[in-house]
Amino acid sequence: MSTDGYTSLVDLPNEMARVAMIVEQALEVLLPDTDGAEGRLAEAMRYATLGGGKRLRAFLVMESASLFAVSETCAARVAASVEMLHAYSLAHDDLPAMDNDDMRRGKPSTHRAFDEATAILAGDALQCRAFEILAEHDTHSDSLARCELVAALGAAAGAKGMAGGQMIDMLAEGQVLDGPAVTRLQALKTGRLIQYSAEAGAILGRAPSHQRHLLAAYGRDLGAAFQIADDLLDVEGETAEIGKTVGKDAAAGKATMVSVLGVERARAHADMLAQQAASHLDGFGPRAANLRALAAFVVARRN
Amino acid sequence: MSTDGYTSLVDLPNEMARVAMIVEQALEVLLPDTDGAEGRLAEAMRYATLGGGKRLRAFLVMESASLFAVSETCAARVAASVEMLHAYSLAHDDLPAMDNDDMRRGKPSTHRAFDEATAILAGDALQCRAFEILAEHDTHSDSLARCELVAALGAAAGAKGMAGGQMIDMLAEGQVLDGPAVTRLQALKTGRLIQYSAEAGAILGRAPSHQRHLLAAYGRDLGAAFQIADDLLDVEGETAEIGKTVGKDAAAGKATMVSVLGVERARAHADMLAQQAASHLDGFGPRAANLRALAAFVVARRN
Repeated sequence: MSTDGYTSLVDLPNEMARVAMIVEQALEVLLPDTDGAEGRLAEAMRYATLGGGKRLRAFLVMESASLFAVSETCAARVAASVEMLHAYSLAHDDLPAMDNDDMRRGKPSTHRAFDEATAILAGDALQCRAFEILAEHDTHSDSLARCELVAALGAAAGAKGMAGGQMIDMLAEGQVLDGPAVTRLQALKTGRLIQYSAEAGAILGRAPSHQRHLLAAYGRDLGAAFQIADDLLDVEGETAEIGKTVGKDAAAGKATMVSVLGVERARAHADMLAQQAASHLDGFGPRAANLRALAAFVVARRN
Repeated sequence: MSTDGYTSLVDLPNEMARVAMIVEQALEVLLPDTDGAEGRLAEAMRYATLGGGKRLRAFLVMESASLFAVSETCAARVAASVEMLHAYSLAHDDLPAMDNDDMRRGKPSTHRAFDEATAILAGDALQCRAFEILAEHDTHSDSLARCELVAALGAAAGAKGMAGGQMIDMLAEGQVLDGPAVTRLQALKTGRLIQYSAEAGAILGRAPSHQRHLLAAYGRDLGAAFQIADDLLDVEGETAEIGKTVGKDAAAGKATMVSVLGVERARAHADMLAQQAASHLDGFGPRAANLRALAAFVVARRN
């Protein structure tokens, strides 16, 4: 992907590490304490959420909020909320009845570190806390903005969003999906929450609707590019390591854009989506340099 | 339990049936449609939620809202939201990794009618939709009331509420808990959501805080009475049917107030709690007749 005058000045890894540290501190404070007979639940919630991941969604919230000069303290609460929502989805997706993954972020998945019942409950309580945080006064002085954050997260995470996407993914195993079907699956399963993360800054900033729509479009294209890049890593990671051209997803019979388009065309499609994502930010000028750099980063990353 | 002048005039079964029909209609509209590749998820959400249960929580929302002349349409949305939250908790509690119950409300539990993955996702999406509904404009014209509904439900359902109670319950199997420990377990596991249901009407009605506190106190005592009555039914149902004095909970090693106090003292305690619940309503006059009658009903019911 071509860079532009702004992007070349950005130290994205450093910016992402800075935001990851801020959101980690917010999560520490906002996750429940481990007191009481129910303390094991909070331990599992903390295990599932803290100390892991690129915090891509948190970064999107913080960066989109910075476009509108939103207080970093408020934005960090929304970023933490989105990361809790994401962590709940990973804890549940990893369960034996779902994708049955023993490892996550380089350590045992939540049900392996605790047990299935605790992992289910930890996911449940993480989702609950995510919504609760958004509705609390400290997240925004304007209750209407808080309601919009809650309702938009509900739409992004629910039956016609992330949970619906996971349902399609479960049903699609071993089936052949065409391009449009895979695109919709990914848009629901991972795209909607990434889109929400980019939109959240506009909600926090009480931005005019055309700016909110531009950030939503950025998030939509970024999420699609991110997912294809992830699928490419699954294929190419395996290829480099054990000389096979198919990886975990193919072995599980999962349809991806790589299985539909092949490696080269999938890579070209991801690059196009990343450029398209960045183009939605044209009107935001140099303030959006980090978000533009992120679009280039998600298709260039190697881990 | 003694009745009073108001309660004797109430046809509670008729009132509860009327409210159950209203909330059923609201649920029909507010649950997602079964269109699309993800339609199975909405089918499971509908299966888990529609057509079952006494709708005790919905009744509490509708009746407490009626104290403040809240529109029935708005109250029904909150009642539907609470029933979705409750249905999610049942779908997850019934899972093999949790209480492993094959039957619920006289039909196969959600994971038996569908499968485990679908039951987990349906619960997840029901919780999500419950919060989303509360934040939507149609629930209340005042966004601050909507935020309070969301935040209070979050506190009631999360790690220090319902989910925390279920965690304690899972950890307590086979252990001997004392009275205070059982009381706290039940207060979290079932009490907090019942309390929320009674409080929701005061939030919807923008009631002064002392009235909200009275309804919360009513819900707290009612919930505790309800749970003991439920535990008594578990013991006595078994006794009548198959001549044993211990039922499902005792067999599962679950601590209840019946196992702590014995049948007679547990019944007396439940009656005392029901009277105490009703006493919090003294200041509301005849408008609270249904809520008073409900307190008498929960300790007198035989199914």
